[in-house]
Amino acid sequence: MTRRADMTRLRQAVLDANLQLHRRGLALFTFGNASAVDRACGLIVIKPSGVPYDELTADSLVVTDLEGRTIEGSHRASSDLPTHLALYRGFAGIGGVVHTHSHFATAWAQACREIPCLGTTHADYFHGPVPLTSPLRPEQIAADYEANTGGAIVRRFAELDPEHVPAVLVAGHASFCWGGTVAAAVETASLLEEVARMAYHTMMLNPAAAPLGDELRDRHFFRKHGAGAYYGQSKG
Amino acid sequence: MTRRADMTRLRQAVLDANLQLHRRGLALFTFGNASAVDRACGLIVIKPSGVPYDELTADSLVVTDLEGRTIEGSHRASSDLPTHLALYRGFAGIGGVVHTHSHFATAWAQACREIPCLGTTHADYFHGPVPLTSPLRPEQIAADYEANTGGAIVRRFAELDPEHVPAVLVAGHASFCWGGTVAAAVETASLLEEVARMAYHTMMLNPAAAPLGDELRDRHFFRKHGAGAYYGQSKG
Amino acid sequence: MTRRADMTRLRQAVLDANLQLHRRGLALFTFGNASAVDRACGLIVIKPSGVPYDELTADSLVVTDLEGRTIEGSHRASSDLPTHLALYRGFAGIGGVVHTHSHFATAWAQACREIPCLGTTHADYFHGPVPLTSPLRPEQIAADYEANTGGAIVRRFAELDPEHVPAVLVAGHASFCWGGTVAAAVETASLLEEVARMAYHTMMLNPAAAPLGDELRDRHFFRKHGAGAYYGQSKG
Amino acid sequence: MTRRADMTRLRQAVLDANLQLHRRGLALFTFGNASAVDRACGLIVIKPSGVPYDELTADSLVVTDLEGRTIEGSHRASSDLPTHLALYRGFAGIGGVVHTHSHFATAWAQACREIPCLGTTHADYFHGPVPLTSPLRPEQIAADYEANTGGAIVRRFAELDPEHVPAVLVAGHASFCWGGTVAAAVETASLLEEVARMAYHTMMLNPAAAPLGDELRDRHFFRKHGAGAYYGQSKG
Repeated sequence: MTRRADMTRLRQAVLDANLQLHRRGLALFTFGNASAVDRACGLIVIKPSGVPYDELTADSLVVTDLEGRTIEGSHRASSDLPTHLALYRGFAGIGGVVHTHSHFATAWAQACREIPCLGTTHADYFHGPVPLTSPLRPEQIAADYEANTGGAIVRRFAELDPEHVPAVLVAGHASFCWGGTVAAAVETASLLEEVARMAYHTMMLNPAAAPLGDELRDRHFFRKHGAGAYYGQSKG
Repeated sequence: MTRRADMTRLRQAVLDANLQLHRRGLALFTFGNASAVDRACGLIVIKPSGVPYDELTADSLVVTDLEGRTIEGSHRASSDLPTHLALYRGFAGIGGVVHTHSHFATAWAQACREIPCLGTTHADYFHGPVPLTSPLRPEQIAADYEANTGGAIVRRFAELDPEHVPAVLVAGHASFCWGGTVAAAVETASLLEEVARMAYHTMMLNPAAAPLGDELRDRHFFRKHGAGAYYGQSKG
Repeated sequence: MTRRADMTRLRQAVLDANLQLHRRGLALFTFGNASAVDRACGLIVIKPSGVPYDELTADSLVVTDLEGRTIEGSHRASSDLPTHLALYRGFAGIGGVVHTHSHFATAWAQACREIPCLGTTHADYFHGPVPLTSPLRPEQIAADYEANTGGAIVRRFAELDPEHVPAVLVAGHASFCWGGTVAAAVETASLLEEVARMAYHTMMLNPAAAPLGDELRDRHFFRKHGAGAYYGQSKG
Repeated sequence: MTRRADMTRLRQAVLDANLQLHRRGLALFTFGNASAVDRACGLIVIKPSGVPYDELTADSLVVTDLEGRTIEGSHRASSDLPTHLALYRGFAGIGGVVHTHSHFATAWAQACREIPCLGTTHADYFHGPVPLTSPLRPEQIAADYEANTGGAIVRRFAELDPEHVPAVLVAGHASFCWGGTVAAAVETASLLEEVARMAYHTMMLNPAAAPLGDELRDRHFFRKHGAGAYYGQSKG
């Protein structure tokens, strides 16, 4: 496939992902944005800033390089672009990033609590708690705020594998999710919201609820991920 | 445009706003009402009292002057008209007012707690907590109740900027929102409900959750408002 | 109008009311039932027992006298018929009764707590708390259970006006609502659910939340009810 | 009817049940599965693993024997098949099994609390609390995890009648429901979710809420079940 055809496909995938955020109730108004990277070309496709979902088209998306310079498009890119860029640079294996203010994930982020792994629904998708970033210092907010948000996320994963825990809560703000493709990142965002809501109701019923034991967490995560997976239909 | 055309447009905007309250689930039955002011003419367009949303037409709206005297319309104006009038007189910069009993905003008003600014979703729209009025005294309830409600709101904003905090909780009652236009007031009402719901779940997860620091609150509010705004597409 | 035409109209009203319970999400499966009385004829129209809402027709409704003897209809009447009968006999001014297991009203009934009047949304419809019945004694459960449920409700209203407080919580069970017509009873059931949900979230935010003062409660209730009402359009 | 016609009917019932799980919001993505048994043939029909609900057809279902050996179908059976098999072997009277991660039932399972019988809605369907299994030991997770989950459920019912309590919570995981048919199991799953949600809100309102007394619990359960039932229309 030509580079042009690749970009057309990537634009379509990013458009679909942004519309999915809206349809699944993960993004109110213009909150939330999705992007994808073409690693071979070094190009990113991202939602334009503040454009309502029902006015979004593949053509209105913005294409930038990995430094955030606009390559194609007449709109201004999402103001969260520098956070997406930091994630693409910091996590070499990911192909798509999604940011939403989905309700329950945001409540945990505002409460400054990570989401503990309380059950198998969580363990099917996240190998351990969904972590929380450290708060930014005033000078990190004053300048390059969005890039510094990305930096805080990447630092939080210094000892975590972003492919085993494909989401994070930014303290006082909301969540970012990622995946091999932007469609996978949207699915993760959707799951994160349900897992956050389940964990909320669990903690209300039992504030001392214990995280799943390591054996059960591993069993569920690796039932769906990696070489020993046996969930779903065999791919070959 | 002629004065007649202006009023036709304003009626349509007020009709749309009232219907939006219903469609967005902010108003059950006939609870909730929206109005707009034409400052040049000194005229207000407001929902008639107790008319179901599906019977509402542009013609059934009521036009009054700033003293609340009916200028056009055969229906009785919303019983909350005196509160709207007090807001138009007290807040010179606003063009529309919305009153709803939306669920979570009303829960905070009934709990007699202001909504703290716990995250960036809140700070994007409200520069600080959503304040709570003082309770009315018995004699303020006995006579001119609705006008006194408006007075309590305006007094609450003695040291607040109504354009930076475009909503209020009336103790034991519900919320009022406003904006440059009635459409903006509806958007604020919709956001207030989501922010109130997020703050509710945050406080349940962490009753000691701290408000956002000043730097992050300012960063988000002024990213969308004022001369330094850089969210969305440039307007010119 | 002839007696036959009256009954046809009443059947239609009861059919509509039962379908409304389902459409408004107040009744899952076959939980919930609505009835109306024709005081002149001494006849009651009520939902048949356990018939799914989508199979319900005006013809499938059951007509009984005030002793509960079937006058028309080939189906068995709702098993809650004796409760409805007790309410029609005990509350002379009512024309319709609705029973639902709507979610939040049932949670209060199961928690064995009356719903305090915490705000004006409540006071617009209920002049004071929504009361809770005393539990039945074992022998009242063993025989004539449904009639005894009705008796417990009527006794609870010994010093309350059923037209000013048109709903009750039956301890450990669910709610009954009533009104001048069966359509009014459905509207009350719908409001009770919203008021119960608002009171729930209010009590979670502030377990010490105080009921509305008498002046504000009276102001709102009598703004909509009685000789001094000024909400809505004048009827004559 | 021939054996072939029986199996065609059973496939259709299992397909309908799986689609119902999705339509009723009990199963997100591919979580959740339903199966049925033909006791005469010793055959089970079950959902294939990880197939999205909108791609599911009667032909894509998997038929196995009671040892889990595939008899018909080119897909891999649900990874939860061994749990279903253990239930069919352990509970001789059941004809269908449903597994979901429905929201509130899962929250109770994650909180490791059984659902107390707090009201008549619960007692209409479950004769007592919905029980919780004991946690599996590490070696039970390491090998034959899904079969051991089934074993834990059957052991939990050593002194319970699975026809009187047709559901269970698996600690840290989610719920399983069963019934005479797979359609009955789906109805139970739907009710379990509502009962779990009601019990949640009840416990929040009153953490010391007491279970229903034995008389009222029995009255409601046996109003709908067994020889003395008088709810619904007589069947003959």
